[in-house]
Amino acid sequence: MRAKKYFFCTLKEKPQHTDTISHQLMLRAGMIRKLASGIYTWLPTGLRVLEKVKKIIREELNKIDAIEIYLPILQPSYLWEMSERYNTYGKELLKITDRRNHSYVLGPTHEEVMTYLMKYEVQSYKELPIILYQIQTKFRDEIRPRCGVMRSKEFIMKDAYSFHTNYNSLQKTYYKIYKAYLRIFQRMKIHVKEIKADNGVMGGNISHEFHAMTNNGDNNIIFSERSYDTAILLNTEKTNYADLYKNSHNEKKNKTHFKTLLMQSSCLIDNSIKMILVKNNVNSFIGLLINHNYIINKTKLAKLKIIAKPITLATKEEIYDLTGSNPEFIGPIGLDIPLIADRSVIQMKNFVIGANINNKYFYNINWKEDLQLPEIADITNIISNNSYYNKIEKFYIKQSIEIGHIFQLEKKYSKKINAMFLTHNGDNKFLHMGCYGIGITRIIAAIIEQNYDNKGIIWNSLLAPFQVAILPINLQQSITVKNISESLYLKLQENNIEVIFDDRNLRPGVMFSEIELIGIPHCIIISERNIKNNNIEYKSRMNNDNQIIPINNIINFLVNKISKNSEQEPVCCTI
Amino acid sequence: MRAKKYFFCTLKEKPQHTDTISHQLMLRAGMIRKLASGIYTWLPTGLRVLEKVKKIIREELNKIDAIEIYLPILQPSYLWEMSERYNTYGKELLKITDRRNHSYVLGPTHEEVMTYLMKYEVQSYKELPIILYQIQTKFRDEIRPRCGVMRSKEFIMKDAYSFHTNYNSLQKTYYKIYKAYLRIFQRMKIHVKEIKADNGVMGGNISHEFHAMTNNGDNNIIFSERSYDTAILLNTEKTNYADLYKNSHNEKKNKTHFKTLLMQSSCLIDNSIKMILVKNNVNSFIGLLINHNYIINKTKLAKLKIIAKPITLATKEEIYDLTGSNPEFIGPIGLDIPLIADRSVIQMKNFVIGANINNKYFYNINWKEDLQLPEIADITNIISNNSYYNKIEKFYIKQSIEIGHIFQLEKKYSKKINAMFLTHNGDNKFLHMGCYGIGITRIIAAIIEQNYDNKGIIWNSLLAPFQVAILPINLQQSITVKNISESLYLKLQENNIEVIFDDRNLRPGVMFSEIELIGIPHCIIISERNIKNNNIEYKSRMNNDNQIIPINNIINFLVNKISKNSEQEPVCCTI
Repeated sequence: MRAKKYFFCTLKEKPQHTDTISHQLMLRAGMIRKLASGIYTWLPTGLRVLEKVKKIIREELNKIDAIEIYLPILQPSYLWEMSERYNTYGKELLKITDRRNHSYVLGPTHEEVMTYLMKYEVQSYKELPIILYQIQTKFRDEIRPRCGVMRSKEFIMKDAYSFHTNYNSLQKTYYKIYKAYLRIFQRMKIHVKEIKADNGVMGGNISHEFHAMTNNGDNNIIFSERSYDTAILLNTEKTNYADLYKNSHNEKKNKTHFKTLLMQSSCLIDNSIKMILVKNNVNSFIGLLINHNYIINKTKLAKLKIIAKPITLATKEEIYDLTGSNPEFIGPIGLDIPLIADRSVIQMKNFVIGANINNKYFYNINWKEDLQLPEIADITNIISNNSYYNKIEKFYIKQSIEIGHIFQLEKKYSKKINAMFLTHNGDNKFLHMGCYGIGITRIIAAIIEQNYDNKGIIWNSLLAPFQVAILPINLQQSITVKNISESLYLKLQENNIEVIFDDRNLRPGVMFSEIELIGIPHCIIISERNIKNNNIEYKSRMNNDNQIIPINNIINFLVNKISKNSEQEPVCCTI
Repeated sequence: MRAKKYFFCTLKEKPQHTDTISHQLMLRAGMIRKLASGIYTWLPTGLRVLEKVKKIIREELNKIDAIEIYLPILQPSYLWEMSERYNTYGKELLKITDRRNHSYVLGPTHEEVMTYLMKYEVQSYKELPIILYQIQTKFRDEIRPRCGVMRSKEFIMKDAYSFHTNYNSLQKTYYKIYKAYLRIFQRMKIHVKEIKADNGVMGGNISHEFHAMTNNGDNNIIFSERSYDTAILLNTEKTNYADLYKNSHNEKKNKTHFKTLLMQSSCLIDNSIKMILVKNNVNSFIGLLINHNYIINKTKLAKLKIIAKPITLATKEEIYDLTGSNPEFIGPIGLDIPLIADRSVIQMKNFVIGANINNKYFYNINWKEDLQLPEIADITNIISNNSYYNKIEKFYIKQSIEIGHIFQLEKKYSKKINAMFLTHNGDNKFLHMGCYGIGITRIIAAIIEQNYDNKGIIWNSLLAPFQVAILPINLQQSITVKNISESLYLKLQENNIEVIFDDRNLRPGVMFSEIELIGIPHCIIISERNIKNNNIEYKSRMNNDNQIIPINNIINFLVNKISKNSEQEPVCCTI
């Protein structure tokens, strides 16, 4: 591409109203332009990167025999009524009515449409398992679109859907796709962390999220210092949780909603307090607060007058009636019951405690500030047979961007939409199903968050809008510079290298800044001074490697650099 | 691709509710599936063809330095209010409101969004001209979606937009794109006819439509026997015109609405009658009906008692008040005025006559059937100084599918959206603009309408979902057949030929029918009988060429067939 014929759209100044580095750099580098809140145009530079991301995803999915299809954006509402998501999906669902008063949703995801397709296209067990995928624009009516393409109304997703005769087959494919995801992110050089996650509105049991670790993100992850494997997803979606909270609980608790924590019940953090409900001597309930590494010592507890004898734990039903949640998520905040705190919790700071909402905890809770210290007693033993819990474990929080989410949906949608197959024995059974998303537009923001410096974006050769920039000095003044530049431009193209040739005759400083801002990984600078010695100056955007290369070697040098990209290029991680 | 791993979705039976051959074959060949009225899923076979159509369009547009971008589907309504199309575009415009009550349209076209982008991204004449394009899903709320993907609610368009400093530059680019369109259609081997067209709701002055000539289409074209250049676009959109008609005229005329004709006023057909309004002797109007190649002879006319003297023609304003249209489109049908017919019109059959709607005529009108023969008189002279009109010219009507439409929009949108550039002299001027559409999903229907037989679709090598099919006979029973098939499968892939290897062990008849239905252009049949003689049977879908080729030559033979596709393959035209 000759720069004169290209549509750069770069911005010299930092644009206003950007809330993340990636948002700012994508605007400045001429990748995107805002049309309305959460709605962006992809300019040529952005689209080139987008297509490369899609290409890698396609290649890896095709390798595992996934087949691409293209599904409608307009989805008839009755399908969403069948799946019972039309009213429960939430306000993010964009609804539209046509001139004949038929109702549709603008697809935020395609489980219904895919299951409906399978209902008619798959007859027998012989045609299963199958993985289909789509790379398309989807929609979500975000209440507060932000972070550029990270949280937008209109975004591009890769969504894959698999169908199976049984759960074993689903599980096998699920982990095949899990591994394909890791290969995809590895090829893109994204520093990623996979986390066992909540299935939420999608349904099913098992799911995993893939998070790109960044300095700017819309998620938080807790890591234990011991291992990545105890990573826990924190959700700092304040408004969202406040809403949830308001709907299901009383006013009192709003005070602390900003500390709400979403995490897996199976991944408790050392610094958390659990509450146990027992009957008191007036036949109502009392909450016992203990360090979650400890257990109640019934003998010690029985000594307290206030406790009913024999010691009677609240049943699961009683707990639900009182708190609205399952036992593992209960906590004192907002509950109007007497409390006793074990000595083990007095010194705790910034602790985690149940929020009385399933799967949710508060974090960063402190005595006095968030919760009055109740009566203290000695009612516990340390669990001594579990060495893990005896160690004091530190954890830290990092920001992240969710770029993938995979789900074992099992029979949720096939039952609702009545999608069956004929078994081996001639029986009709419901299809098992998995679904697997990658946020393509979010990936690009994530990669930028991981790869930038004060000059701009730093692309690797695989994702760069152009792999090489030819930057001539005084192009119009020197016929030698012009000839060498033109000849290299042709030769690089012949070698299938994507090259931008800056033929605009700009001042060198202006030209360098723009190419650095866009993040072209390999630059060759053509100056009369070097040509005299039969040399070319090479500059790497990734590691500031600066070399003088003989003109005759430059093509081989670049071909070599680029073809070895996936193995040798350093991962330039900003975080 | 191994057939076992592919998702065919072919149908053995003719599907119900299909109104065109292409619709039927696209369903049967497993290219598309209906989700709702006018809304289709593109299955793997359809998507493969779609991608090839896109590729050819991209290649030809990139050659003329057009640059691809990706524009939002959700367009803020205020942009459509600025362009004054929000209320005038018609009921085809799908409108949607988000949770914050912001209003959007689902883009049917992107003039507003592009002009808005240019307003900020182009500053100076130095950056012009520029051609940008997008290949994306667009929306139209069709009242009667039909003909499969030909008239659908959701469809894929290539739309290009060019911007210029002046009209000359616009014209130059317009014809550059015009030629690129012809190359695109030529590469796809579409039998296409370009026609000067009406700008309609898009605005501007000059526009051309590109029509694929078919046996099933949603447009009609009139050809003169003399030359293609007098082709005229007829619109047989019955409901549409009936609506138009009802709104602007009285009930009486509905009887003939099915003969409504849309054509260029500049392209009158020989077989038409014009009406001239003059005053009669009671000071109201009388209509004179004459062959449009004739002129009134005032002396002859003055002899009629009923005519006021001196002869007084109705003014343009009087004509408008009486008929609701301009003088060149007036006619007797539905008007309650006295008429006199010249002798020249008595013998005319199936003639064309003004519809009292601007730019519209009735066609196929006959005396008695559609219109009572009025009083006859001799009131005309033949125009003898125009030899063209002295010849009697036949015309015929063919069906067509509109696959492209290009417009010189000039300053229509830049003025509304205030998109300016800085001239050479430092003045601000409005941008000139052109826009250029290709209906990608419609193209596929059009190509099928031009290329099918009673077995199914017939693809050329450039657009086929797979270029070659390997069809083994008794694959599971013969290790030789298996080995040769596998080895050819690998070799064809190494030669970058897209091949489907039917490894399903179906009965040969079933396998052949399915591959013929899909329309794979080149088949090689691997049978033990031929292998014994070191031969392979080759079969062309395009011309039923059947050859026995030595195994050692088959790869070269196929590579040669396919690489020479664009020059040598016959255009298999069904029409």
